[in-house]
Amino acid sequence: MENIQEQIIIPTDKLVFIPLGGATGVGMNFFLYGYQGKWLIVDCGIGFPGDGLPGVDVLLADPAFLADKKQDIVGLVITHAHEDHIGGVAYLWHDLKCPVYVTPFANELLEDKLNQEGLLGRVDVHVVEQGTSIDLTPFEVEFIRMNHSLPEPNALAIRTHEGLVVHTGDWKLDADPILGQQTDFQTLEALGQEGVLAMVCDSTNVFGTRTSKTEADVADTLTQLISEYPNKQIAVACFASNVARMEGICRAAAANHREVCLLGRSLWRVEAAGRATGYFKDIPAFLSEAEALERPIGSVLYICTGSQGEPFSALSNLASTMPQKNSVYFGADDVIIFSSRVIPGNEKAIALLQRRLKAKGIKIITDREALVHVSGHYAGDDLKKMYTLLKPKIALPVHGEAMELMGHVELARQWGAKAAFALEDGEVIELDDTPQIIGEVKAGILAVDGKRIIRLDDEALRKRRKMMDDGSAVLTIVLDKKGVLMGEPQLSTFGLVEQTESDKEALILQIKEKIAEIKPDQINNNDLIENHMRQTIRQFLKEHYGKKPVLEIHLVRI
Amino acid sequence: MENIQEQIIIPTDKLVFIPLGGATGVGMNFFLYGYQGKWLIVDCGIGFPGDGLPGVDVLLADPAFLADKKQDIVGLVITHAHEDHIGGVAYLWHDLKCPVYVTPFANELLEDKLNQEGLLGRVDVHVVEQGTSIDLTPFEVEFIRMNHSLPEPNALAIRTHEGLVVHTGDWKLDADPILGQQTDFQTLEALGQEGVLAMVCDSTNVFGTRTSKTEADVADTLTQLISEYPNKQIAVACFASNVARMEGICRAAAANHREVCLLGRSLWRVEAAGRATGYFKDIPAFLSEAEALERPIGSVLYICTGSQGEPFSALSNLASTMPQKNSVYFGADDVIIFSSRVIPGNEKAIALLQRRLKAKGIKIITDREALVHVSGHYAGDDLKKMYTLLKPKIALPVHGEAMELMGHVELARQWGAKAAFALEDGEVIELDDTPQIIGEVKAGILAVDGKRIIRLDDEALRKRRKMMDDGSAVLTIVLDKKGVLMGEPQLSTFGLVEQTESDKEALILQIKEKIAEIKPDQINNNDLIENHMRQTIRQFLKEHYGKKPVLEIHLVRI
Repeated sequence: MENIQEQIIIPTDKLVFIPLGGATGVGMNFFLYGYQGKWLIVDCGIGFPGDGLPGVDVLLADPAFLADKKQDIVGLVITHAHEDHIGGVAYLWHDLKCPVYVTPFANELLEDKLNQEGLLGRVDVHVVEQGTSIDLTPFEVEFIRMNHSLPEPNALAIRTHEGLVVHTGDWKLDADPILGQQTDFQTLEALGQEGVLAMVCDSTNVFGTRTSKTEADVADTLTQLISEYPNKQIAVACFASNVARMEGICRAAAANHREVCLLGRSLWRVEAAGRATGYFKDIPAFLSEAEALERPIGSVLYICTGSQGEPFSALSNLASTMPQKNSVYFGADDVIIFSSRVIPGNEKAIALLQRRLKAKGIKIITDREALVHVSGHYAGDDLKKMYTLLKPKIALPVHGEAMELMGHVELARQWGAKAAFALEDGEVIELDDTPQIIGEVKAGILAVDGKRIIRLDDEALRKRRKMMDDGSAVLTIVLDKKGVLMGEPQLSTFGLVEQTESDKEALILQIKEKIAEIKPDQINNNDLIENHMRQTIRQFLKEHYGKKPVLEIHLVRI
Repeated sequence: MENIQEQIIIPTDKLVFIPLGGATGVGMNFFLYGYQGKWLIVDCGIGFPGDGLPGVDVLLADPAFLADKKQDIVGLVITHAHEDHIGGVAYLWHDLKCPVYVTPFANELLEDKLNQEGLLGRVDVHVVEQGTSIDLTPFEVEFIRMNHSLPEPNALAIRTHEGLVVHTGDWKLDADPILGQQTDFQTLEALGQEGVLAMVCDSTNVFGTRTSKTEADVADTLTQLISEYPNKQIAVACFASNVARMEGICRAAAANHREVCLLGRSLWRVEAAGRATGYFKDIPAFLSEAEALERPIGSVLYICTGSQGEPFSALSNLASTMPQKNSVYFGADDVIIFSSRVIPGNEKAIALLQRRLKAKGIKIITDREALVHVSGHYAGDDLKKMYTLLKPKIALPVHGEAMELMGHVELARQWGAKAAFALEDGEVIELDDTPQIIGEVKAGILAVDGKRIIRLDDEALRKRRKMMDDGSAVLTIVLDKKGVLMGEPQLSTFGLVEQTESDKEALILQIKEKIAEIKPDQINNNDLIENHMRQTIRQFLKEHYGKKPVLEIHLVRI
């Protein structure tokens, strides 16, 4: 990988696009536009590693390609405040050190993050209003109002001498979005007339439904549902950043004369960011858990986090079988509404959580039973509308799994795009009348492991994975100059099914015998002795446990 | 948990049902019927642990409740040969030691498994033809032909003096199943007239489509699809045990003048079991990989395993970027058809595999694009038909996630069941005119870890999980009687991001300083010295790596 970038020369007189992260899959969005030797970054997000990468907190796109180009980065522009678009800024700031451009709501959440990492005030953050443009010569970037599942989602109109690129970010069209205004169709239409060279577009819902319902529809359904359980405790689980959903839930609560209590820290954080930037205007202050506990049963509606089955979340606490002091407790016939979708990869965790709720007799309502959730991404008809409005010559689907990207490529061609490419991370494409992939540059994934940021192929991660499966063992033996054993050998094993003491004694005995067998001419050969020890332990554990642990020998010479 | 079973007395004059595994979720099916002090077991399957349980190969229902009842087990009856119904027999045989009843196809696969565990000939296996009954006094068990995604799926009619229970196993109704005959409606209808006290029923597709297509429909689609890529290599990935699908694929291949090659050991195993029991009758011998390599491009159709993204599977090999010697290689514009569904939990692995295939330019077709798969479980209308035919008084949904079980309970009531229960594993229900849950017995999950079978809450698994996240470390120090350090301290760390040598030296230096500080009256206090060492290491690693590893100290006294 190291020398891939040597293989291609990136022309400075062409506009190029390079996804460094987020071309495929969902997460780690990190897109590059290059022109006249300058670089514009769009989004800098994180990804989540899942169970397969033990100990890794989050994943990041590797910005190594930019290492020798820092002085040529004109800016990092954030389309919206979701973690997979903004979450990497605090981690990668030291590698980029360029100005960052965000809208007001995203700025509130970014400040929180920078503060946590001790970077507040050190990062050059600029707040941009939706509908305005910024000059990042040789790029001009206009923020265009879209709809999505949080406040202030933007498409970016990126203008250069070589033409106009529309980078959609995550988007949908919502006829009744509750929050903020509708998508800025007027500007989109004008862009189409101006002529769009390329569109870099979200692919999440390529295989979704053709038409979609609105946030207002969800609020109506919730209003009805809540009215059906007048004397029960009701909690609605949703994604924390979905301010429109929160407002809709509040509307449904008010119609049913319930006060709203927030359970979960991230909801309170989003509430603060929202109120600071003009949202939740007509919504009374939320109840704390302590206040809610003093209200009569049936007079409170809870909004909680944890719809994805996250352990230690508010919803997971509601599933616990024992009432906790000073905590809300849900029991038989109480109601929990999952106002959310199942994010791929979370199926098992969610099913487990729902089992625990079911076992307590709690009534569960999901989007299979009622319209309690709408996607934050477009429906099929909206995607077609976008192509009709913008008429891009080149379609560059991103932000989807392989199948979605390939499906999107086919649709884009049907809808008039002259060329469509589903790029891999690192691929470099020239955007002009004859677009072509001219090669690839270094791309990869970084893992945040405790305080370190390492490459995903780091040896430590491989070893940890092996250790997970087979455990590890350390033997200590102390030998004097004549090769005579001093003290007792000591053995530690980790992650093996508990050894019995007799097993351990039997193994130590074998080790002692092996040491006694060492020939006089081998007494000083540490490597040979260590190998003998390794063999002895390996054979024993294989035979008795069916395991091949990672082994280390501490041979101390006195 | 240990004394739960002491709390209830199970009446011997009543028919009781106890799910020990498989009540909720999919996997580890293990159901018990009790009557007159005798016990009938239905199914003995395994579950798969996923990434969250490192090193664990498979999961089993814990049969501890039967430990003191072995002599009263009249038999273990297997409904069909899927792993989640039959896979546990070889592991749990020693705990059950009862006769096992299987149909011929299941017997072939069971023999393989028993052979692997050295149990062949030691287990008392009886082969039963579909449509016949066996006497397991006080139970009589009739095997009734159903449809599913493998040969010889059975519903069981379990007759006792207290009434008739129908245990459906996994089932669907397939009007054109390709393989074997249709469901035995005549017998089901007769059972309904005889009067069904209770039905224990599969819940997999409660939220599925209302109507379903047939295996023959899939074969037709495949025939058409294959004809569209005349000069390309084509592979169809499917579940190994799906003999009907394999026959359908062969039919589609023949119509396109392609010979069929099997890639993947489990397909060859199923082929052997199938041919031994009368399936694949008109299908010519399959090509080996070596034979296929000698045929012209476009004259072979490959059937392969690995549709769930399993590493090291045939399909995963096809995704590899480098051609391997003596192996089939797929490249740009070759075609892979996923004739399978996404099993929940496998989304990420499948998406990753599809990314790799896409990156090679391989055309992918899934059941989103074409009718290349039908479920092995019923559609909504079939479930209703089953309730209409059997008219059970009591409905006992099993084999589904919490939401499905709860949905199934509601449907069963709508369709005339007087009572419906979604039981938890271990719950005991009396089956009579006034069915009630009378308590619960010990139930739990066992994990097969290398050669050991342990309870899922074993300390070793907890430690392994912690080690995965935070690594482990062992320090060796050798002290003489005066507390003076002999030799160099040795430190091993596992799963920490690689320590630099200078880090390690710095830590060893701190350790030496700590040892030098030991006061004369503490020289012989091993606990105190070990605690000092632990603190020193912990603080250092926390500070430099943000990690709290599992620690052990080898303190050797000379």
